[in-house]
Amino acid sequence: MNQRTVFFVSDQTGITAETLGRSLLAQFGTVSFRQVTLPFISSVDKAKEAVRRIKLTAQVEGRRPVVFATFAERELGELIRDSGALFIDFFDAFIGPLEKEFDTSSSHTVGRKQGVSSDQSYQRRIDAMNYALSTDDGIGLRSYDQADVILTGVSRTGKTPTCLYLALHYGVFAANYPLTDEDFEKPHPPEALLKNRKKVFGLTITAEQLRRIRLERRPDSRYASAQQISFELREAMAMFRRHGISYADTTDSSIEEISSTILDTMSIDRGDSR
Amino acid sequence: MNQRTVFFVSDQTGITAETLGRSLLAQFGTVSFRQVTLPFISSVDKAKEAVRRIKLTAQVEGRRPVVFATFAERELGELIRDSGALFIDFFDAFIGPLEKEFDTSSSHTVGRKQGVSSDQSYQRRIDAMNYALSTDDGIGLRSYDQADVILTGVSRTGKTPTCLYLALHYGVFAANYPLTDEDFEKPHPPEALLKNRKKVFGLTITAEQLRRIRLERRPDSRYASAQQISFELREAMAMFRRHGISYADTTDSSIEEISSTILDTMSIDRGDSR
Repeated sequence: MNQRTVFFVSDQTGITAETLGRSLLAQFGTVSFRQVTLPFISSVDKAKEAVRRIKLTAQVEGRRPVVFATFAERELGELIRDSGALFIDFFDAFIGPLEKEFDTSSSHTVGRKQGVSSDQSYQRRIDAMNYALSTDDGIGLRSYDQADVILTGVSRTGKTPTCLYLALHYGVFAANYPLTDEDFEKPHPPEALLKNRKKVFGLTITAEQLRRIRLERRPDSRYASAQQISFELREAMAMFRRHGISYADTTDSSIEEISSTILDTMSIDRGDSR
Repeated sequence: MNQRTVFFVSDQTGITAETLGRSLLAQFGTVSFRQVTLPFISSVDKAKEAVRRIKLTAQVEGRRPVVFATFAERELGELIRDSGALFIDFFDAFIGPLEKEFDTSSSHTVGRKQGVSSDQSYQRRIDAMNYALSTDDGIGLRSYDQADVILTGVSRTGKTPTCLYLALHYGVFAANYPLTDEDFEKPHPPEALLKNRKKVFGLTITAEQLRRIRLERRPDSRYASAQQISFELREAMAMFRRHGISYADTTDSSIEEISSTILDTMSIDRGDSR
């Protein structure tokens, strides 16, 4: 298989370069990629060292590497450009049209600006994470009034990871309430959910996938039996439908997709995520 | 202040468009932005509805909006391009040079490919999250052998959010161990850390910032007193230095920056994050 080395290089965390680069690489299924991130290349010395590594790779592999770059300090980016790699500078390509559109010059201080502007959002994300942890798995019912969304569903449908992702990425206050046999014996949804019905979002999953997950956790248990699982999923789904609760199937979705679906369906502000 | 409306539009989650778009917008500090994400625009009908919204915004504001787009289905992207907005398509700009470089055509299936390829990484991220939760705040010491990294530091230096971010974003197994007075009475680092010394990474923070955070949690406590805080921070720092433990100051850093620093310092594979 065709193999290529790809560098993500930045004077900041490199996360933006990784995000862009990986989205693009995903379009080339027939090529396999060795991926190297070089973050915090924030001085001329570090840039020179990065260039040395890129050149060495080209030499060893007999092929130029691909570099995805995001540099707030344009001069440092220019040093990397001279490495001989295929150089894709994400900021360079789009800053021009935007400067024209906004009729102002850019500040070339991406990193720093983000630092400052994320100050408030940082605290909100930490608060949201603490909220998710303090309302995980049906605890902390009394603070449901503060919730932006309350996820519900049977055990192992992905509630906790989704809550934590919503918190850490978007600063969204997400609680989660697991549905158990006890909840299915009553004609109405659990008390705690009823009071905040508009905030409730259901998660479901296929029986096969759920069985696989539960068997791994507790083999030979009632919890992991096909019968119990199909009962729980059927009851949960009936509850969602009967009470007009929006829901999503997590079987083939990533945490990002589920989170994005929830924000979209519940019309929750996605705010300034970074 | 100059205000502009920005749309992030995608036939997938829109997270890539948001991440990239916000990195660019951060360079324009003198403009304020109203941000709207339109995810899952995956049919012609939805694309037409998105175009309608974009055109309406232009009409109401008397100014064309800016659209940052990532479309796996190129035709849908073309529909949005015709909305009259300043249209920045992140894939279009770079796919050409990459196709030439790799001497192959792209599959235009970003989203789907990501879904499939993230299957394994999805499970790893869930496992990593469960690991972080089961080893949070000094519990689960016995599973430190499984850790990729063990964060340590005094209470409220950002250990838990960083562990969860490393887990959810990178699938990294991160445990955390809080340093308390008891640990400072001994001449050596805590037993649990000693056994895995090479995996330990310290977090610190300025006394002022820590005081602010602790006062909010427990006003008038010894825990939040200036004397106690400066004692703890001094002792923790002495331990890091004495035993050659790498550390970072979290005072002015985002969760992303701290996480990226840790991966870089500890040479942990950043894997396939999305």
